[in-house]
Amino acid sequence: MTLGKEIDGKAFAAKVQDKVAEGVAAFTASQGRKPGLAVVLVGEDPASAVYVRSKHKMTLKLGMESFEFKRPANISQEELMELVEELNGDPRVDGILVQLPLPKHLDEQAVVELINPDKDVDGLTPISTGRLALGLPGLVPCTPLGSLMLLQDELGDLSGKNAVVVGRSILVGKPMAQLLLNANCTVTIAHSRTQDLAGVIHQADIVVAAIGRPEMIKGAWIKPGATVIDVGINRVPAEEEGKTRIVGDVDTASAISHVAAITPVPGGVGPMTIAVLMRNTLFAAHLRAGLPAPLGL
Amino acid sequence: MTLGKEIDGKAFAAKVQDKVAEGVAAFTASQGRKPGLAVVLVGEDPASAVYVRSKHKMTLKLGMESFEFKRPANISQEELMELVEELNGDPRVDGILVQLPLPKHLDEQAVVELINPDKDVDGLTPISTGRLALGLPGLVPCTPLGSLMLLQDELGDLSGKNAVVVGRSILVGKPMAQLLLNANCTVTIAHSRTQDLAGVIHQADIVVAAIGRPEMIKGAWIKPGATVIDVGINRVPAEEEGKTRIVGDVDTASAISHVAAITPVPGGVGPMTIAVLMRNTLFAAHLRAGLPAPLGL
Ligand SMILES: NC(=O)c1ccc[n+]([C@@H]2O[C@H](COP(=O)([O-])OP(=O)(O)OC[C@H]3O[C@@H](n4cnc5c(N)ncnc54)[C@H](OP(=O)(O)O)[C@@H]3O)[C@@H](O)[C@H]2O)c1
Ligand SMILES: NC(=O)c1ccc[n+]([C@@H]2O[C@H](COP(=O)([O-])OP(=O)(O)OC[C@H]3O[C@@H](n4cnc5c(N)ncnc54)[C@H](OP(=O)(O)O)[C@@H]3O)[C@@H](O)[C@H]2O)c1
Repeated sequence: MTLGKEIDGKAFAAKVQDKVAEGVAAFTASQGRKPGLAVVLVGEDPASAVYVRSKHKMTLKLGMESFEFKRPANISQEELMELVEELNGDPRVDGILVQLPLPKHLDEQAVVELINPDKDVDGLTPISTGRLALGLPGLVPCTPLGSLMLLQDELGDLSGKNAVVVGRSILVGKPMAQLLLNANCTVTIAHSRTQDLAGVIHQADIVVAAIGRPEMIKGAWIKPGATVIDVGINRVPAEEEGKTRIVGDVDTASAISHVAAITPVPGGVGPMTIAVLMRNTLFAAHLRAGLPAPLGL
Repeated sequence: MTLGKEIDGKAFAAKVQDKVAEGVAAFTASQGRKPGLAVVLVGEDPASAVYVRSKHKMTLKLGMESFEFKRPANISQEELMELVEELNGDPRVDGILVQLPLPKHLDEQAVVELINPDKDVDGLTPISTGRLALGLPGLVPCTPLGSLMLLQDELGDLSGKNAVVVGRSILVGKPMAQLLLNANCTVTIAHSRTQDLAGVIHQADIVVAAIGRPEMIKGAWIKPGATVIDVGINRVPAEEEGKTRIVGDVDTASAISHVAAITPVPGGVGPMTIAVLMRNTLFAAHLRAGLPAPLGL
């Protein structure tokens, strides 16, 4: 029984970060200012706070400006909208990220729609989504773009390959399908209403799982030699009582002997998300400055 | 050998037009003004002139205002952009349609992007595209929406069905895939780089062909009992010398014994496109007036 390769997302993300750092240095030298990322955190959600802190650290590490805006959970819609407008107008800010989810009393969609699409480093505004679907240049959500980069690094040209994306969220599944289509894959989008998911997955040379169900996709469903990107991050009880561990949406133990390559969880797609956020910020800075997109990113 | 049903797009389009006419009458009574459609035609392309004329006639027939703007082929980008801005600001205009293609010296994308998305009855602006992909309310391109209406009329709930869309243009294939996904189909998008198109099509309960290749899809490729929407409009030589006739992208002669139902060409999707343009104009008028979407459309 041959085992498939585990794709080292951490190592690849480190390479992306190095390239971003180089690009940041060049931008700063030519423009006389650093690219800047503004992150807005509303409320006290501990997971969100952890994400925001690691984004802040990474932004500084790669040589960019980091602007953090922590606001209380009871901030009004108006105050939050004003903050976004201010950041839209602030010339030091190239990227704006409003950490989601927002507290329930706030209209998340209205806040996202207000973000200047040229600063939309999360790629979630309707204009960014439309640009992606229309094949126009623009900002793309970080996790799917990171997943595509891993696939292209592993497989080279994706043209003509059968790709199945399981999941159709705005954050992952739908933009992933658009990216694979733009890369000339034949793309199938599956979801909770899909009949015979195993059969659908078995057609695919490329499987992207973005479901949020621990180890749901079994090895026997996967066509031998396929490449699998496991986007899922699911916390499950660990063997040791009271402890938890993180697993993906793919049952790696049974899949590893079917696949050519698979991203592990953790250490696969996860590290790419933040690396691509950095890439998107640098990218936005270039676009705003009227410069061509940074090379190799 | 049982033969599949031919879907009568002309009859269904007539029903849609009747409903639009009713909606127009109700809107006019409640708002004290008619919904209005502005069509911009640049240059002398004979096919475009025919389309614009039939849109004009249909708009009047259903009780709406029709505003026609014919401009010479040598109009400047600035003049055309000014015209669109004027229509964006004109309260009598609910829908703006710039007949494509534009003469080569004009930047088509810039013109389309200028259209107020709330008046974008062709559904081609990035914001409309983004709204469709995000599942937000908005205006959807006419031909795919008409195709979806035919499918839902024929099959009822589409949830869980395997749908294949052949073609990924901005006008037809891509928005069609989004609509089928929003209707809970498992959706595959195929195109010129697809390997084994026959095999991909053979998986599908629903086939939408939007390719532009006369009679390319053969009956044997189609899963018995599938429903087929043939969007193609291709002019080919007729038997009588010097004459031409119109055929679709599906080889109907061989397909008719495989399908449960199929749209003929002409008389299938074609008549739906203009009916949906009328529906979109009425829809835009409702949205702009702050009214809920008209019932049953
Ligand atoms: N690596 C990263 O940095 C990163 C980033 C974002 C997300 N994630 C992880 O990726 C996973 C997905 O995230 P998301 O935001 O896309 O989640 P989501 O918004 O909950 O979407 C989940 C999707 O999976 C589909 N689904 C649910 N159950 C299914 C089933 N039994 N069979 C087939 N499809 C099913 C749903 O279908 P319906 O649409 O029909 O409901 C939905 O489209 C989560 O584990 C999340 O933690 C990781
Ligand atoms: N009924 C109506 O009212 C209406 C409205 C609009 C269009 N149409 C008709 O619908 C057809 C498609 O129109 P469109 O605007 O979408 O055309 P288009 O922009 O030319 O797109 C054609 C699509 O078909 C794909 N394709 C080309 N050759 C193929 C092949 N051998 N195998 C698989 N896919 C192939 C192309 O793939 P690539 O992307 O890889 O090149 C492309 O995505 C035309 O016949 C048009 O006249 C009808």
